[in-house]
Amino acid sequence: MNLPNKAVICEVGPRDGLQNEKKLILTEQKVNLVKGCIDAGIKIIEIGSFVNPRATPQMADTAEVLRGVGKVSGVEFRALVPNVRGAERAIEAGIGKIKLTASASESHNRNNFNKTPLESVRGFADCVKLAKDAGIPLSAAIGTAFGCPFEGVVSLGQVEYMARSFIDLGITEISMSDTTGMAHPLQVYTQCAAMRKAFPQVKWVLHFHNTRNMALANIFAGLMAGVTWFDGSFAGLGGCPFAPGASGNVATEDILNMFAGMGVETGVDIDKMIAVARLAREYVGHETESGVLKAGKTTDLAPFTKCAQS
Amino acid sequence: MNLPNKAVICEVGPRDGLQNEKKLILTEQKVNLVKGCIDAGIKIIEIGSFVNPRATPQMADTAEVLRGVGKVSGVEFRALVPNVRGAERAIEAGIGKIKLTASASESHNRNNFNKTPLESVRGFADCVKLAKDAGIPLSAAIGTAFGCPFEGVVSLGQVEYMARSFIDLGITEISMSDTTGMAHPLQVYTQCAAMRKAFPQVKWVLHFHNTRNMALANIFAGLMAGVTWFDGSFAGLGGCPFAPGASGNVATEDILNMFAGMGVETGVDIDKMIAVARLAREYVGHETESGVLKAGKTTDLAPFTKCAQS
Repeated sequence: MNLPNKAVICEVGPRDGLQNEKKLILTEQKVNLVKGCIDAGIKIIEIGSFVNPRATPQMADTAEVLRGVGKVSGVEFRALVPNVRGAERAIEAGIGKIKLTASASESHNRNNFNKTPLESVRGFADCVKLAKDAGIPLSAAIGTAFGCPFEGVVSLGQVEYMARSFIDLGITEISMSDTTGMAHPLQVYTQCAAMRKAFPQVKWVLHFHNTRNMALANIFAGLMAGVTWFDGSFAGLGGCPFAPGASGNVATEDILNMFAGMGVETGVDIDKMIAVARLAREYVGHETESGVLKAGKTTDLAPFTKCAQS
Repeated sequence: MNLPNKAVICEVGPRDGLQNEKKLILTEQKVNLVKGCIDAGIKIIEIGSFVNPRATPQMADTAEVLRGVGKVSGVEFRALVPNVRGAERAIEAGIGKIKLTASASESHNRNNFNKTPLESVRGFADCVKLAKDAGIPLSAAIGTAFGCPFEGVVSLGQVEYMARSFIDLGITEISMSDTTGMAHPLQVYTQCAAMRKAFPQVKWVLHFHNTRNMALANIFAGLMAGVTWFDGSFAGLGGCPFAPGASGNVATEDILNMFAGMGVETGVDIDKMIAVARLAREYVGHETESGVLKAGKTTDLAPFTKCAQS
């Protein structure tokens, strides 16, 4: 088996992890978390979004978080941007990369944005122009790239269509996002291989949720298909509050633990990342489903106990 | 990618799932669960163990459970047996298969059984003779086959040694058990490929725990390496009570959900299995980390809601 021996982790905890938390996380706390990620060696951080603060109050302070962290050489801060107003705010705040998103599933895109996927992407033309004029690079995320909670199956054709639409806007860093944790590893492998072949100019990123316990299986499959950029969320934070019990994003520290075993280098210090994850969990005030936070790294040895399983 | 299109699920919920539960599960409840598994299409059930009832009170009624279920054509009931006394009780109770276990790690085996692995296997000679004379087939489980919580790394050589020792006793159905959830998929793939090559006469079984969220990744890897027999536990029950927060066995319904997506047939009805898992969870009186029990099958569609992730 020929696995890549390097991968890149994009930390989305500050945005995808925190955006729906019930408890309001303070700007200072977010700055601490972001600085912790940087200290751990993370080079790409999705630091927040520039969406309507009334709709997503948790993200209202993204500009302040950016300011609080400051510019850091070699670290890219990206933010999710929904429209021109968001792009203007992001550029003014000094963002390093703007991320646009639309869903491969029409039902899901209409539900979230009141538009068809094509309308969404076409609507981004102005954002793209703004970003280009300001010299800010762009990336895109295709939501429901492996399945839609409303429609069910999402075809490869639908995903290719989205990719092509973003490429037409000049965007060549594209994330396939398993928004509600429906992907299975064979599908991920097949789709990634196909998309890499169809669009060799694209830097592919994978974004998985551990809703049905397949996130790491899917990452393994993506790696086998040659994708090496993965989103992770500290402590496995994130997930929709309206889907009770649904698991969150794949935990960054869980990815690092698996990669450590498999000899995939990321440049990220897992122990420092675990400390960030613990801090995040402390801030949000609840447990998460991170395996490593509960059970330790694979390499942590247990003291002799009556029962280490039998 | 050439995956097998059939696999066999061995349901270990009644033994590995229930043996350490705080709440005493009634014999009648166990019988209900076992009957539910049979109705769902499970053909191999680890119905309990014949260990010292003072040490493991939850397993004291295994003979009664067997009696309550009765003989079922085409369904194999197996039980974990630690010694001659256990073998006698198992045979008397009408067990269909006796399973012996020892750990690849000496530290772990000493901790659990006060013997070296070799002493354990040699000590099984009498059990094996009893079983053979009674016409009862045998299987074996190699514990800590992918890592030991005390020692850390377990070498392929240690696992091969255990396999050879069991084969010398005439046992050719052998489970590699990731007792404390330390395996990662590349390791599983490599080890399974190696063991299948070294011992082509063996029917290999894989037993994973989802301690660090890699159980399904490991099953996927095992499948790729050609292993098609997997233990699962309804609702993902099981796991050591002394390792706080440590996740349990991989949930049978999670395996079925992944296999359904990948086109791997098991002959098991996932909806019926989900019902059994819900019942098991009701009996034990606590939540578990089964993805499917929390979020539904991948194919369950969501009603239109404000947020199906964004």
